[in-house]
This record gives sequence, structure tokens and C-alpha cells, in this order.
Amino acid sequence: MKHKKLVIGLFGFGVVGEGLYKVLLQTPSLNATIRKVCIKDAAKKRNAPASLFTDDKNEVLQDEEINLIVELIDDSEAAFQIVKSALESHRPVVSANKKMIADHLPELLELQQATGTSFLYEAACCASIPVIRNLEEYYDNDLLHSINAVINGSTNFILTKMFDENLPFKEALLLAQQLGFAESDPRLDIEGWDALNKWSFLLTHAYGILVKKNELVFNGIQLITHHDAQVAVHLGYSIKLIAGAKKLSNGKVAAYILPRFVKNDDLFNSIKNEYNGVVVESSFADKQFFYGKGAGSFPTASAVLSDISALRYNYKYEYKKLYHHQVGELTQDFYVKVYVSFADWKYIPKDDFESIEEWHSNDQRSDLTGIIHFEKLANSDWWKTNEVSLILYPDDIIESMDVVKVKKRSLELAGFAG
Amino acid sequence: MKHKKLVIGLFGFGVVGEGLYKVLLQTPSLNATIRKVCIKDAAKKRNAPASLFTDDKNEVLQDEEINLIVELIDDSEAAFQIVKSALESHRPVVSANKKMIADHLPELLELQQATGTSFLYEAACCASIPVIRNLEEYYDNDLLHSINAVINGSTNFILTKMFDENLPFKEALLLAQQLGFAESDPRLDIEGWDALNKWSFLLTHAYGILVKKNELVFNGIQLITHHDAQVAVHLGYSIKLIAGAKKLSNGKVAAYILPRFVKNDDLFNSIKNEYNGVVVESSFADKQFFYGKGAGSFPTASAVLSDISALRYNYKYEYKKLYHHQVGELTQDFYVKVYVSFADWKYIPKDDFESIEEWHSNDQRSDLTGIIHFEKLANSDWWKTNEVSLILYPDDIIESMDVVKVKKRSLELAGFAG
Repeated sequence: MKHKKLVIGLFGFGVVGEGLYKVLLQTPSLNATIRKVCIKDAAKKRNAPASLFTDDKNEVLQDEEINLIVELIDDSEAAFQIVKSALESHRPVVSANKKMIADHLPELLELQQATGTSFLYEAACCASIPVIRNLEEYYDNDLLHSINAVINGSTNFILTKMFDENLPFKEALLLAQQLGFAESDPRLDIEGWDALNKWSFLLTHAYGILVKKNELVFNGIQLITHHDAQVAVHLGYSIKLIAGAKKLSNGKVAAYILPRFVKNDDLFNSIKNEYNGVVVESSFADKQFFYGKGAGSFPTASAVLSDISALRYNYKYEYKKLYHHQVGELTQDFYVKVYVSFADWKYIPKDDFESIEEWHSNDQRSDLTGIIHFEKLANSDWWKTNEVSLILYPDDIIESMDVVKVKKRSLELAGFAG
Repeated sequence: MKHKKLVIGLFGFGVVGEGLYKVLLQTPSLNATIRKVCIKDAAKKRNAPASLFTDDKNEVLQDEEINLIVELIDDSEAAFQIVKSALESHRPVVSANKKMIADHLPELLELQQATGTSFLYEAACCASIPVIRNLEEYYDNDLLHSINAVINGSTNFILTKMFDENLPFKEALLLAQQLGFAESDPRLDIEGWDALNKWSFLLTHAYGILVKKNELVFNGIQLITHHDAQVAVHLGYSIKLIAGAKKLSNGKVAAYILPRFVKNDDLFNSIKNEYNGVVVESSFADKQFFYGKGAGSFPTASAVLSDISALRYNYKYEYKKLYHHQVGELTQDFYVKVYVSFADWKYIPKDDFESIEEWHSNDQRSDLTGIIHFEKLANSDWWKTNEVSLILYPDDIIESMDVVKVKKRSLELAGFAG
């Protein structure tokens, strides 16, 4: 099979775009060249011939020589318009824009179906880790038991510094910003919004679930206190921000993005600093772990390049779980075992808990360990306020009430303690 | 793009073959069916319609309806004849036969080129871990700094039991055999032959090196003693059988399969029991780690299925490092830091060492730490005898003599000690 020559129209020339440009120059074997680059400010001096640049997107989109669009800009709405236009003219697109994909996935799916044109975005989740491709190659929805992942490098960097170097949250955050691992407005990372974007479309590839972002229960790490870190260490745990999804025995899928205790000998605890990691459990391949840099210009460029390379043999996502299988369905009908620390009992809706197994208190902060129905978490926000922090235990999901033996009885004790 | 219907001719109906048969029945979406299965004994009762089976390979190879051959038999020479015949009739082949591939790679490459037909074998190395596909997608030879891996599940199982549960080697081996992780003749695993087969063709995908098996320096774990395990624990290490390859600053590649000390907080130490793991370091993607089951019927079947799935869009290995880049070249011109334990100094060619940094001795066993030129290891076999065991240190490869400051001087001291 002879590969076709790829003539690329590139949108964006930031660190990833420029990196891509350089690497393509050095790899003639890829048989791919950049013909035009569309940027906001065409006058700005850049490390590439001025003739390459334009600020008119139509000069790229309407160039008939161009047979592949690579979209690497920040603005997610502008990016969507570019992708839409390219797919409508039957030109495949490679993108790294997670917010755009999360916001527009239904339309993007429709466009891919209507045009039969490939849209690849491996770089949009976990950068260098080929997680989407790997999930796509899983042939049968039923076989994927669970997928759990660290998908935000900034928060993982901060948690690593808090646990391994005993830095306070604020200092760790500052260090992350200085090293370029967090945005100058870090809330998108810290409060879980970035992870939410990524997880929403990863659930489509994993389980065929088309999830609206406001349906997913999520939090970041902004509420974790020094007290929580101390408790974790005492229990032999560290804390990670985990994006989790698990197929329950009724066939429905439990999913969330929440801080979780992680045992010291767990694979997740080997994910340090700005790295990402994904643990997939399935019937056939059993447990698999993928680990690598989840952000940064070069890791992202490497994922963009592997998508470009795949387009040479017309690779496309099949969304098998969505189109060829019984479509997955999210559920909130299960229980979770949680640790909650709090400034005062008045912030804790004790009656919401099925059981409270234990609690401790000192002058500054109290904490409890209890079991709560997930729907009650989903429909409340007491655990998202500054006075409270909530962390899942490992092996967090409890499917049946039969396991929850103690139940309401212990609530009275908790009431006594309060 | 409409996928073609895959009509499979299967060779072998062992655990992997039968698993494949079952899964294909359950996944009509894959649009792949098994038309014929060739086995040795057609009369044997099996969990599939008798009409499917034949003991005449030509009934499969000459069936014009069949457009894909899956080869899952033990006999590597018979397997090669099947693959050869299939490729010559322009039918793509999926195989899991590592020995066949290692023994016949040059001919298999020629066949692929001459016929333009795809030959995929992801299952032949690390089973469920997509290591070959991942290496193939690395676009530029120059970017791959190193690849280090645990690629034999049996030896890793034994080492895990020795270190985590303090079992003696022989008991750990017996347990591995009872659980089906080692052959009844375990020498192929224990002495490193299985790893040698896998590593020889992985080096082709990683660096474009076509290596003859007798050019690779290798050993297994059969010589590791209880004394060595104690020393490792004392130093804060465990021991893993590591297949390693590293591009040196002169562009040549250092490669081997040898036992190596591994720090407790190293990623390799998270690879337990029968699991495999691969650490890739490159300029762009930086450090990546792939972890999963490296053997067993289901993990192997899952890799075979992902190859079958890839053939629907005509995926083929490009062997880019071999055909499109400056071909890699093995070198033995570097130094390694080694730990050697021995029953008596008479087994140790002291003059071969550049330096011996330290040594210890008790009634049963002595050990030393020293630096030796790799070519001197390659051209000798004192370290492969029962009286000696040799283990690499982490960060084992030393490129230049400048680093080796002490040199011969300390040899005299060693001589004194002996």
C-alpha cells in the first residue's frame, strides 16, 4: 500500500505548533509537509518563513492542495468552527483541544458520520499516552470492567510535592506555576474542570456514553487540607485526583472525578509530578497500566504526530462502544466509602450517610469515615464548600446495601459525637 | 470507509485459539468469522463444530474464501511454512509465535516487502501490552533514547516471590509451574531464551537493528543466589531480569538481557508476578511506561484480536527505523557497573575489570562491585557458570573511560583480598 502525501494546513503556532513544524522538517520519511499556518497575528516574527503564515482562515480551509488540517489553537469555539468546516470539505482533522471536544462531541460525531471523514485527538487526553487508541482497539464493550486514571498533570504535581516533599498546598501550586505545569489562572486544573473535559469524551471511547458535563460528579483538590494529608500518611496512603469509571454488575457505569486515597504500593502511587497514568481492567487483557507525560509541548506534539501518521493509512475512530454495542448508561445508584474532614459538624448532613464508621476530632478539624449513597453526593454541594473536604477510600464503590451492615445505627453515635 | 469482511483460517486450537474462536462468535460487530481451523489431530473432541476442523493445512491455505490467516501453533518451523505460504498468496497473517519470528525475521521482512502483505504479531511480545504498535508509531529513530523492559513473566513471578515473600528460588519456580506461569521444562524462561527471542525482534522495531540471536549478550535468573537477594535487600534494591537497549552518544546501540538491581521506588519495581512492563524514553514523549499481563491465554488472545481489528483498515508495520532511517548498529564498546558474587576468587578474571570498587566475603560466598568493559563480558562465559552470578547496577551503562577514575589501581587491592 502506497501512502498518500499529506499536505497540512496548521492552525496555531504556539509551542506545540512550532514543535510540530520543526519535527516534520526533520522527518521527510513521514511524507507530510505544512503548506500554510493560520495565526492571529500574521506580522509577528516567527522561526519559520513568513510566506507560510496567514491570518485568514479561509486561505487554509479553501486551499485545495491541503488534505489534512491540524488544529492547535486555544479558543475552543473558533476551533470548533475550523474543525466543522474542514470535515465538511472532507478533510481529516487532528486536534488537541479537549474543551472543544468535550463541548461539541455530539456535533463532532454527527459531522464524522455525515462526511465519513476522520477526526483524531489523541493529544487531547493524557498527551503522550495512547489512551484513546487503546480504548478504541478494545473490541467489546462488555469486557471493560473499569478505567481509572490520573489525567491532570498540574494537580498531580501539587499532590506529589505535598506528599513527597511536605510542601503546603500554596507553595506546591506556586512551584507548579513557576515550572509551567499550571495555568496562571490555575482554577481550571485545581478545581477539576480540565479533568472533567477529558473524562467526558474518554467515557465515550470507553463505554459509549455520551455524557453532558453537568451530569458528572467531580471535584478538584482545592479543598484538601494539611490535616487530610497527615491523616492519609498515617493510614499509609497518598491522595490522587482520580478520574474513575466502573461497570457495575447491572451493566450501568459509575463514574466521577474525585480525590481518592491511594495505597503506597498501588500503581497510582508510582505516578509522580506532572505525569499521567491510566489503569484499565478488562476480562481479556486483564490489568493494564499506561504511564507518561500528560502535558507539555513535546509530549503533546508527539501525540499529534502519531495521529498524523495514522491518517496515512486512513485510520479513524470507530466509536464501537457507541455505534456497535448497547450504549453505556451512567448510574448514581451505588454507595461510596468516604473520608470527610470538616471545621464543624454543622456542615455535615449526617442523615445523608448510611453509616459513619468512625470519627476523630481536634481543635482545628474533625474527620469521619462513612458510607453514603452516590446520588446524595451528586445532588448536594456541602462537600464542595470551603469548610469541608471529601476523599474517597480505595476500593471505593459499594454496589449493594447488603455489604453495608452497620447502617443507621451508628448515626446516632455520630450525632452524639457532634 | 467500509470495512471488508474478514474470513479467518486459523492454525492451532489451544487455549488462545479456542478463546479467540469464542470471542469472535460473541462480537458480530467485528465482521470477522473463522471458516476453518487446522489442527494436528482432527479426531479430537473440541468445543466447536467438527465441520470446522481439518488436519490438512492446504484445505486452509488454498481456500479462496479465506482472506486472513491466524497462526497460533507451537512448532516454529511449521509455523514459518504456514506464514510463508499465506503471505505468498497475498493473505495477511497474525501470529503470536515469538520463536518463529526471532528465527526467521529477515525472510519474513523479505516476504512482506515482496508481497506487500501485512504480517502482525503484537501478541508475540508482552502479550496484552501494545509495545510493537507503540514503537512503530514512534516516527523518528533518533528520538528513542532507550527502552528497558521486563518481558518474561515466569522469571518475574519467581523474582517477586523471592523478594516479596522470601521464597527460595526452587520453591518460587515450583509455584510458577503449578500456576501455569512456567513451562514444565522451565529453562527456556529461566535461562533467558524466551526473552532473547522477544528482544531480538523488538530491537528491529525500536532501532531498526536486525540482530542475530547469538550477537546479544544475555542471561537468565538461574544463577541468582539467596546471598544475592540478601545483598540486594540490604542495598534497597530488588532484582529484575531486564531487557535493555540504549542509544549511546555515538549513535550506536547498547543492548542486553541481564539481571539488574532495581531501586525500590523505580517503576520497574511496580511490575509484580507474571506482569510485564516496558519503559520507553524519547525526546518528545519523554518517559512512558506500559504495563500489563505478558502471557496467558486471554491477554494473548486480546492482542491477537487487536491485530485482527487493525487488519480491517489494512494496518501494516512499516519498520520505519529499518527502511526509512539510518539503520541502527549494535555496539559492545561501553562499560557496565556490575555486582558479582562467587564461590571463590579463582572463578573471577580480575584483570578483565577496569576497577573493583569494593568486595565482601564470608564463608559461603564473596561478592564484588566493579566496572568492566562490555566486550569482555560478551567474549567470556565465566559469569554464566554455576559458581558465579552477575547483576547489573541501576544506571548501568558507562560510555566513557573518563568517568572510570580509579581503574587498575584498585585491582591490586582486589588481588590482595583474593
